[in-house]
Amino acid sequence: MADQQSKPLVAIVMGSDSDFAVMQKAADILIEFQIPYEMRILSAHRVPNKLKEFVEKSESEGVKVFIAGAGLAAHLPGVIASMTYLPVIGIPLLSGTLNGIDSLLSIVQMPGGIPVATVGIDNSKNAALLAVQILSTSNNELADKLKLYRKKMADAVLKKDADLNKNVM
Amino acid sequence: MADQQSKPLVAIVMGSDSDFAVMQKAADILIEFQIPYEMRILSAHRVPNKLKEFVEKSESEGVKVFIAGAGLAAHLPGVIASMTYLPVIGIPLLSGTLNGIDSLLSIVQMPGGIPVATVGIDNSKNAALLAVQILSTSNNELADKLKLYRKKMADAVLKKDADLNKNVM
Amino acid sequence: MADQQSKPLVAIVMGSDSDFAVMQKAADILIEFQIPYEMRILSAHRVPNKLKEFVEKSESEGVKVFIAGAGLAAHLPGVIASMTYLPVIGIPLLSGTLNGIDSLLSIVQMPGGIPVATVGIDNSKNAALLAVQILSTSNNELADKLKLYRKKMADAVLKKDADLNKNVM
Amino acid sequence: MADQQSKPLVAIVMGSDSDFAVMQKAADILIEFQIPYEMRILSAHRVPNKLKEFVEKSESEGVKVFIAGAGLAAHLPGVIASMTYLPVIGIPLLSGTLNGIDSLLSIVQMPGGIPVATVGIDNSKNAALLAVQILSTSNNELADKLKLYRKKMADAVLKKDADLNKNVM
Amino acid sequence: MADQQSKPLVAIVMGSDSDFAVMQKAADILIEFQIPYEMRILSAHRVPNKLKEFVEKSESEGVKVFIAGAGLAAHLPGVIASMTYLPVIGIPLLSGTLNGIDSLLSIVQMPGGIPVATVGIDNSKNAALLAVQILSTSNNELADKLKLYRKKMADAVLKKDADLNKNVM
Amino acid sequence: MADQQSKPLVAIVMGSDSDFAVMQKAADILIEFQIPYEMRILSAHRVPNKLKEFVEKSESEGVKVFIAGAGLAAHLPGVIASMTYLPVIGIPLLSGTLNGIDSLLSIVQMPGGIPVATVGIDNSKNAALLAVQILSTSNNELADKLKLYRKKMADAVLKKDADLNKNVM
Amino acid sequence: MADQQSKPLVAIVMGSDSDFAVMQKAADILIEFQIPYEMRILSAHRVPNKLKEFVEKSESEGVKVFIAGAGLAAHLPGVIASMTYLPVIGIPLLSGTLNGIDSLLSIVQMPGGIPVATVGIDNSKNAALLAVQILSTSNNELADKLKLYRKKMADAVLKKDADLNKNVM
Amino acid sequence: MADQQSKPLVAIVMGSDSDFAVMQKAADILIEFQIPYEMRILSAHRVPNKLKEFVEKSESEGVKVFIAGAGLAAHLPGVIASMTYLPVIGIPLLSGTLNGIDSLLSIVQMPGGIPVATVGIDNSKNAALLAVQILSTSNNELADKLKLYRKKMADAVLKKDADLNKNVM
Repeated sequence: MADQQSKPLVAIVMGSDSDFAVMQKAADILIEFQIPYEMRILSAHRVPNKLKEFVEKSESEGVKVFIAGAGLAAHLPGVIASMTYLPVIGIPLLSGTLNGIDSLLSIVQMPGGIPVATVGIDNSKNAALLAVQILSTSNNELADKLKLYRKKMADAVLKKDADLNKNVM
Repeated sequence: MADQQSKPLVAIVMGSDSDFAVMQKAADILIEFQIPYEMRILSAHRVPNKLKEFVEKSESEGVKVFIAGAGLAAHLPGVIASMTYLPVIGIPLLSGTLNGIDSLLSIVQMPGGIPVATVGIDNSKNAALLAVQILSTSNNELADKLKLYRKKMADAVLKKDADLNKNVM
Repeated sequence: MADQQSKPLVAIVMGSDSDFAVMQKAADILIEFQIPYEMRILSAHRVPNKLKEFVEKSESEGVKVFIAGAGLAAHLPGVIASMTYLPVIGIPLLSGTLNGIDSLLSIVQMPGGIPVATVGIDNSKNAALLAVQILSTSNNELADKLKLYRKKMADAVLKKDADLNKNVM
Repeated sequence: MADQQSKPLVAIVMGSDSDFAVMQKAADILIEFQIPYEMRILSAHRVPNKLKEFVEKSESEGVKVFIAGAGLAAHLPGVIASMTYLPVIGIPLLSGTLNGIDSLLSIVQMPGGIPVATVGIDNSKNAALLAVQILSTSNNELADKLKLYRKKMADAVLKKDADLNKNVM
Repeated sequence: MADQQSKPLVAIVMGSDSDFAVMQKAADILIEFQIPYEMRILSAHRVPNKLKEFVEKSESEGVKVFIAGAGLAAHLPGVIASMTYLPVIGIPLLSGTLNGIDSLLSIVQMPGGIPVATVGIDNSKNAALLAVQILSTSNNELADKLKLYRKKMADAVLKKDADLNKNVM
Repeated sequence: MADQQSKPLVAIVMGSDSDFAVMQKAADILIEFQIPYEMRILSAHRVPNKLKEFVEKSESEGVKVFIAGAGLAAHLPGVIASMTYLPVIGIPLLSGTLNGIDSLLSIVQMPGGIPVATVGIDNSKNAALLAVQILSTSNNELADKLKLYRKKMADAVLKKDADLNKNVM
Repeated sequence: MADQQSKPLVAIVMGSDSDFAVMQKAADILIEFQIPYEMRILSAHRVPNKLKEFVEKSESEGVKVFIAGAGLAAHLPGVIASMTYLPVIGIPLLSGTLNGIDSLLSIVQMPGGIPVATVGIDNSKNAALLAVQILSTSNNELADKLKLYRKKMADAVLKKDADLNKNVM
Repeated sequence: MADQQSKPLVAIVMGSDSDFAVMQKAADILIEFQIPYEMRILSAHRVPNKLKEFVEKSESEGVKVFIAGAGLAAHLPGVIASMTYLPVIGIPLLSGTLNGIDSLLSIVQMPGGIPVATVGIDNSKNAALLAVQILSTSNNELADKLKLYRKKMADAVLKKDADLNKNVM
């Protein structure tokens, strides 16, 4: 991303450009928290070697968390997890006819030893927030930003609650 | 397998030795059809590099079909399929609490371009028969053996039907 | 198909003309690989005798692989499999209200002895590629074409990845 | 069955002798209602020709209803239904790991034109009672027996209810 | 129905007028087979007493088969079955958000003693054909009509198959 | 129940004595809260008329809440709900092979107008507690007992927590 | 609600204003029965402290029943139930891709001790009717209104049934 | 835990002592990696206030990651996540009759803004490894231990593979 000058701390990977719109919502959160990231299209099945190169390079150049989204038999997050000791966050993407239950199970049911931190179907926003939470465990400034983010969410709910009861509907 | 002297035509791969009992039933069929095979324990997540070496070596040394069984988020068949142009047969294994529906979906719902020929849950016998069918497309002797095998199956059913109606139950 | 002059190596069968659009994608792949095929509408339930005639004729005239697509209680692939020793590839089609899980289970959960090589729901492209893989086990030219096809898929992913990172989005 | 002297009105078919115990419960109901029946082991996939012969012979010799039980990708009831204009009752049998949901969907989701009258998973008793109901539409004696059977069921419930409230538990 | 002058042999019942469009397809089949029927809106939950009156009246006035369609927790077919010894055909209707799996299970999984002959989700056509099959067990004319109906279905498939192969697509 | 002298406020109904063990856990809670109840075996399908009599009598004699448990196509709670304006609590019971998902959907997915207050599968304890909560809305003594019950539950958790951390495990 | 002058007897809570349209249908029923209510937007996850304050205040100020609707991992009803001894009615809302099965299970499968009275997916009408039923256990006027409401529902069905059979369709 | 002298970095929470055996496997991994932890039994529904106190105290005293396991309508991880900005890892536990799919969906499908890092059903080992991965993002020693752990896993697979092929089976 041209607007991310520092070295990326988070790598966002998807297997196909058709996943871009959903994955961009993860990037939006990282931008909001001013966390440098890199976003790549690297399929676990179509370019496994390039994926491996990228994961190893990322690990050695300072990436701290991977976010990977995939649909159907969603192997991408698990395959990345097999290539790095770093935490990998998996986003089951809605693709095909089964409402995303296929990608959810293909991501969350990893065998013992190789975890993938799974979030809800198409919930790329939560994937990015989880990445921020992970980074915040060693970054007080991010921790403060997260607390502020939570406060804003709470205020937004309270405002809607106030609006609901201000008017006769 | 010490009793398989010729070069293997089929490679049977599982991710864990806990899958051995089910996978051996595939081997039994290949033995019955006198098809040389190799059986390996090579996890897609724990030893991805060794798996890749093995798949490439197998492809170059004359293996014609891969059979891979896996449970849970069953990536093994799909990962092998991403490493070879040869047909890969996937067996969803019963593992964990979800009755094998997780492994079935993780294997069968492969993205466009990288198929896995999926059989029923724990149905390693059918996986091996499918491998024999594939080999039989260019091997008339195997085709004859398959026809004989079908005839024996039919005879077994007819015998049971005859037995049922011979006796008062 | 008028443009397929040689004897068909692959038979594509569907039970209803409403399945044509999805099944044609399998034919498109076969055309791309220059594999002669025949496409037929022959329901397992409505014209079982014609189906049997066709399967037996195909087997005797050199067809090597069957591809069958069906929705709902999708019996067509399994019924064909019961009529031939050749490999049968089953495509669960989306039909009715259950997202294709009914056709997936009706195809993949075949009893021991009669396998159907099942691909993902509506994934007729993968069905055809699997047929090509099967034929390639005894056809080096096809094997080379498959390797090239894989390379093109990889190049397409890498191009999209490069495009993504060329521009600010 | 040696104890069924008249011509069978109901044909009970299963694909494997492993289904016998469940299917016998259907036979028990027919015996209770004194309805002559025939019970056969004839797999749709392993002996399709024998099955066809049997269905055609049964139809011509006076059978009025077929009862077919099958597990997994349970094609047997639907295949029989494709061979006869007579009503076919399908029993999804518990087999394999998916709790019978595979056989239920494989039986009940028949395409338009070829119905199978489906009962609950492993509910061979209800299959037989449904056959009796069908026969009773043209047999007043059977209708009376069914009314009596219902009355006995009701009495049994009322007796258990009375017992429950007679004692301190 | 004003156009059905004879005494009804089949009673079609639905719980809500929102089910009318699907249920009418059952009526269309009965009209095609010239079978007199009655169609009613009688909810098992909202007018249980009227439903009971209707079922008892139908039974006494010569109805031979009930067809009942219901969505969600689809109790209507089972409740009718508890009120008559006659065969009851249940159609699980698509209603609400669960794709009809709720109505399918609510209809097919009846307890022992009270069967409902269940057809596929929204498959009112098959429900009516099943009713015709049941009536045909004691009506040779209907049996002949069913055989003709099957033949027409087969011819329609064969015509589509011929069309497919006549033209280049 | 011989030990319940006052007029019952809660009626517990099950369709079969095989459900007794689970349903008794609901009775145990009512005994603990000293709420008079009546427990009956009255199947919606086998003795619909007796069930109706009982529901009407209960309503007129002061019952305030019904608790009904059923398995499979669990119609009992919904059928009772169609017979009374009083709240009906439904317990989906584990029965058959589908883990209780059939009974859950058959109970909770009631059509608009006739609610059933559904609790978890086999969770008869929660059904009874819900009945107590309902009665407590007009009974301060019961409200106090519920608060005490909650406090005891909390104390039990805290004791286990303390035990866990008292010892080295 | 400005038009609800008396003290609320029912509290309707949702976690997000996107749930408003469905939840308003619950309010509409309460308005029809002239039951004062309060409607609030208070997320269990975003404003847990405000939610707790509200529940405690409601309990102390005379609310008798809570109605809570939530989608996805629908914790709101259960969290409210952990904060009060009063009955809590949970509405699983359709949200996300899984047809509401996630919210249904997240609401109905509460652990022993803390029940939530669950209604069907998006069935806010039934939630409100259940609240009316609960209140009617100590309010004869409401009981009479409920009986009248049932009668109107029955009349509406009978009118539709009459209309259906008045005209030729 | 008496053997954990340093301040805990990870807090393991379960709602019931019946979950202890599975949760201890998470503790075992932390012991293996010499990471100080605290393990508590604190139900989200039964002792919500104590849970809140504990989460706030843990956050202020240096805990970096929460691990929470729960079954059925598994609210515990999400409720903790609503109380802290720190990462929360959720383990869906097998409990009740639905194979853990209820707890999986109740944990993973969190609404936008409050993520829970979900692992596979009963996979407490992966939960702990994920916690180690998170801590390793700011702790090189832990990163090295993780790499070593991966290497040992790989060696164990390779040894089993070697054993398999050393002997005739």
